[in-house]
Amino acid sequence: MRRYRVEELTDYCYQVMVAKGVDPVCAKATAEMLADAEVTGMSTHGVSRLTIYMDRIKAGIMSPDNNIKIVQESPSALTIDAGNSLGAAAAKFAMEKCIEKARETGVCFAAVRNSNHFGTAAFYTKMAAEAGMMGLCCANLKGNVAPFGAAAPYLGTNPLSLSCPTMDRPLVTDIATSTVALGKLILAQKLGKPIPEGWALDQDGNPTTDPAEGRKGMLTPFGGPKGSGIAIMIDIASGILSGGGFGNHLTGLYEMTGPQGVGHFMGAIDVSHFTDLETFKQKVSQMSAEIKALKKAPGVEEILMPGDLEANKRAVNEANGIELPEPVYQELVNLGAPHGLTL
Amino acid sequence: MRRYRVEELTDYCYQVMVAKGVDPVCAKATAEMLADAEVTGMSTHGVSRLTIYMDRIKAGIMSPDNNIKIVQESPSALTIDAGNSLGAAAAKFAMEKCIEKARETGVCFAAVRNSNHFGTAAFYTKMAAEAGMMGLCCANLKGNVAPFGAAAPYLGTNPLSLSCPTMDRPLVTDIATSTVALGKLILAQKLGKPIPEGWALDQDGNPTTDPAEGRKGMLTPFGGPKGSGIAIMIDIASGILSGGGFGNHLTGLYEMTGPQGVGHFMGAIDVSHFTDLETFKQKVSQMSAEIKALKKAPGVEEILMPGDLEANKRAVNEANGIELPEPVYQELVNLGAPHGLTL
Repeated sequence: MRRYRVEELTDYCYQVMVAKGVDPVCAKATAEMLADAEVTGMSTHGVSRLTIYMDRIKAGIMSPDNNIKIVQESPSALTIDAGNSLGAAAAKFAMEKCIEKARETGVCFAAVRNSNHFGTAAFYTKMAAEAGMMGLCCANLKGNVAPFGAAAPYLGTNPLSLSCPTMDRPLVTDIATSTVALGKLILAQKLGKPIPEGWALDQDGNPTTDPAEGRKGMLTPFGGPKGSGIAIMIDIASGILSGGGFGNHLTGLYEMTGPQGVGHFMGAIDVSHFTDLETFKQKVSQMSAEIKALKKAPGVEEILMPGDLEANKRAVNEANGIELPEPVYQELVNLGAPHGLTL
Repeated sequence: MRRYRVEELTDYCYQVMVAKGVDPVCAKATAEMLADAEVTGMSTHGVSRLTIYMDRIKAGIMSPDNNIKIVQESPSALTIDAGNSLGAAAAKFAMEKCIEKARETGVCFAAVRNSNHFGTAAFYTKMAAEAGMMGLCCANLKGNVAPFGAAAPYLGTNPLSLSCPTMDRPLVTDIATSTVALGKLILAQKLGKPIPEGWALDQDGNPTTDPAEGRKGMLTPFGGPKGSGIAIMIDIASGILSGGGFGNHLTGLYEMTGPQGVGHFMGAIDVSHFTDLETFKQKVSQMSAEIKALKKAPGVEEILMPGDLEANKRAVNEANGIELPEPVYQELVNLGAPHGLTL
């Protein structure tokens, strides 16, 4: 199978969405996010998600329009109603506004409600880092995760990304607050592979290596009570501070019963309002070099800083092109074919 | 041994510090923080730390004065130089300013440099919650933690606290980004108890149950690479954004070679700038009730929300009085005796 440049994937996804009636601004943000996830090797959140996005629009439970609007605004705070538009469009708009306002006041945070699955949180925090700011982005999702101590799902995988600029590429950490992200189960199931024990519990609370059983059951929070507490606070900031929904009142991406109703919480912290930006970048790069030069643990070839894995994957994919698994390729082809689009 | 009211411990610690020449404002903040940690059962960060604080001042490596000043200010951003004053005084001042400015702009964050050990991060985020805001507080410390993949210490236990108001007591999560806080090793050593395997590695990188060996060696980050990434970002925000020191360039609380040089990063997010405060509180209380009512995991008697453990301990201590371990009591008595103070 041929390999693709990131621009080709972006353009194809954009064309598919516009052909299906998606607002061009929303389609652009979503296509950029999906292709960025793909090129950085986060393929669980990459172009394979375009099908479900289009299915939700076709079913009338996600809007193809740009309904995103600011409903409350202060010098450093924004509440945004996404109006059930594409999550990536709402999140990109929110982070753009945060960057713009943080440039004036030093810091700005936005809470977004009535939104949808926004893909990788790293896509939005990288925007802040590229603007010379530290970025934070998190989101709530339908509950697949059992809070620590519970044997029932309530929380989502509630991702958290943090970023900052350096002398070269941004440092970016992007984690699910579950032990692993649901996307890893979805991809494993799509590829017919088992999952390691410890990632998920079945409906009765037993460990399982079957991704389908895990998807029907629940995920565990990372780091026990510590990750559970962080996931709860993310749900509060994304779901309650935004004036939206939370916990198991949300609707899952693959549940076709109604809008997801999820929220996001994100912010930009403008480094130059705190300290000299160039000195900041130099010190972060110095820290990276120092950590990478530490004595390695047995079996470790290279100590990785947050985002190293994704940056390394991007370099390989930009040099060799992006390879798509056959089922994902076929899904994309099927999406474009009715509109005369070819990949 | 008799038991103490929180006000008695606060007053005694305050009197000891003032007698030893500490600025009254700095002494008040520190005494309040120490007694609050003690009453909430976080005794690893409680009154047992007063001795080392006073030792550092006596050694001339921490200042008894109030040197805390704002060095850069924007509507929603503050950079504060603590001037080597007591950490609790600098952190309390920073959070007070954040709350004041967030009331105007919606959100305010502060980065603090040239500071010292500030005790529990929860003390400062509770201030935000009590003002109707979500709070965030973190700090860097001298490196006892090996970054994920490394077999050498570089990071501190870099605590992170998040809080929000509810219909009754605030929700407060307060975690070390190591598997456990160094304080747990210190207290175990003081009480002559072993530590569970997995908390710490010895100097050669082997697991140890001897708290003294663990203190000479290193701690592990919580949740593997996820906690490691969060700890690195906390170091950057506390140490580099503040214009201060970071990683293994800092000095440990128990190293008597010079100022600690640590930093803090904290912020207040004013709920009413995003959504209606009463509705927010009601929804968070609803979420707590829903989570606590979930099916329990085998062996779990009660599902705990962030801060439940500390609130339960406070209720018991307020009813029965606070009990001090004999070595801690003796340390406090020894501190006050030369000044004619009795506990």
